[in-house]
Amino acid sequence: MSAQRASLPIAVFDSGIGGLTVLHELLVSLPAESYLYLGDTAGFPYGTKSLDWLRPRIGRSTRFLLDRGSKLLVVACNSATSAGGDVVREVAQEHGVEVLTVVDPEAEIAAAISESGRVGVLATPTTVQGGAYRRALDAQGRELQVTEVAAPDLAPIIQNGFPFDQRVMDTVRSYCAPLQRADVDTLILGCTHYPLVAPMLQRMLGRDVRLVTAGHAVAAAAQRALETRGLETENDTEGEYRFLCTGRVDAFRELGTRFLQMPLGEVEQVELRP
Amino acid sequence: MSAQRASLPIAVFDSGIGGLTVLHELLVSLPAESYLYLGDTAGFPYGTKSLDWLRPRIGRSTRFLLDRGSKLLVVACNSATSAGGDVVREVAQEHGVEVLTVVDPEAEIAAAISESGRVGVLATPTTVQGGAYRRALDAQGRELQVTEVAAPDLAPIIQNGFPFDQRVMDTVRSYCAPLQRADVDTLILGCTHYPLVAPMLQRMLGRDVRLVTAGHAVAAAAQRALETRGLETENDTEGEYRFLCTGRVDAFRELGTRFLQMPLGEVEQVELRP
Repeated sequence: MSAQRASLPIAVFDSGIGGLTVLHELLVSLPAESYLYLGDTAGFPYGTKSLDWLRPRIGRSTRFLLDRGSKLLVVACNSATSAGGDVVREVAQEHGVEVLTVVDPEAEIAAAISESGRVGVLATPTTVQGGAYRRALDAQGRELQVTEVAAPDLAPIIQNGFPFDQRVMDTVRSYCAPLQRADVDTLILGCTHYPLVAPMLQRMLGRDVRLVTAGHAVAAAAQRALETRGLETENDTEGEYRFLCTGRVDAFRELGTRFLQMPLGEVEQVELRP
Repeated sequence: MSAQRASLPIAVFDSGIGGLTVLHELLVSLPAESYLYLGDTAGFPYGTKSLDWLRPRIGRSTRFLLDRGSKLLVVACNSATSAGGDVVREVAQEHGVEVLTVVDPEAEIAAAISESGRVGVLATPTTVQGGAYRRALDAQGRELQVTEVAAPDLAPIIQNGFPFDQRVMDTVRSYCAPLQRADVDTLILGCTHYPLVAPMLQRMLGRDVRLVTAGHAVAAAAQRALETRGLETENDTEGEYRFLCTGRVDAFRELGTRFLQMPLGEVEQVELRP
């Protein structure tokens, strides 16, 4: 049973292509594992949707994904974690699968590395309103001054393929301004899309501000989770990757190939059951 | 005189768009400075050209660039440094301008961080044949086992805009194989294009191999050079950026915008004097 389960893929769920930044870190740490990635690109962006719309959607997405069979679920979407972490856990429990999410790993790293204790969070409106980062940072047992900035346009800008014109620069600069005024020394990139514009953010904020992303920490957590449960693959070559999306396949493939720096192979368009 | 010189831009020279990875680090460290970037895209790739062709070309390029007026020259091209570092220094001396190059900063970092002493160098054929890395690593005062891999196709793959198909993956994998056999724990990315495929390399080599790039070290050296000579700009807003290239402007602008994550503004096509 366990050997059979061990051969199953790791499921990765995101609202779009941002989760590929997390998948990349998983591929670096656990290259022999297989992966099944679902991007709910037809539902994107989650970051500006209502909880009433999001919570059932997140439930349907993760149920669809886990019905395909997997041994671990990584929620590589901060908005989904913040808006429906409990929904995901419920679905995963039905399937007997452990869940790893973003948010907590980033809060832990930020609290550990900030020298001044002034920590910024750049995230979607959904994530900021859900308060998940504030709670996670409060739980770190250290006095922190937290500055949260809701960035409604940043994930869509990235998902749409980076038109780096002056308007985009001005938008991102306006998100950075309150972080600069608060003099943060550590910034949590609270959306899995944002590592894709880390160079631009680093330039605007300066080298002294440390950017915290979830990918590496989540990959380490996934490795521990598999080891603890004896679920590591026995495969010693590279694993297989499958990609599912609810929106247009060609757009997913083009951006996905560029961001992941590898051919995606088959990308399957899927329809969520109502 | 010095105040007038301080207002001049920093000149950055590369054979193509790879030097933008170095320019990015300069923009992070010294955002108020102005920059004049020359990509000799019509001469690209330098990495597979003969010394007889390269050395006069490098001389003409850097003379053209410095004739426009600048206070510091950064050679953001390993092939040019390896094939014509002495030519560049001569031209710079005529103009009374200090030169910073890649190669030495990377060798210094690699020697400092490698635990096993097994260091890899991935570079163009020109750079490997020139022996600049081997000399620079030998000069670090530490016994190192150096494995050099000449990668004729990698910079052109990147310059051509990343078609991440199976053929490209297989090519890059073949470059990684001797590095894996040699069990290096540190790899110098000996071409300024290569940081753009760091994710792919990191995945193929695994997380335990540390990738060394020149950008950050060169930016720190530039800051020191300006401070030492009292040449820091008095400007306290963002500086101005100008881009020159010898090849097609539209290709330079498209790739440059994507890699630098900012609008390039005016890109001027220039012709090198014979």
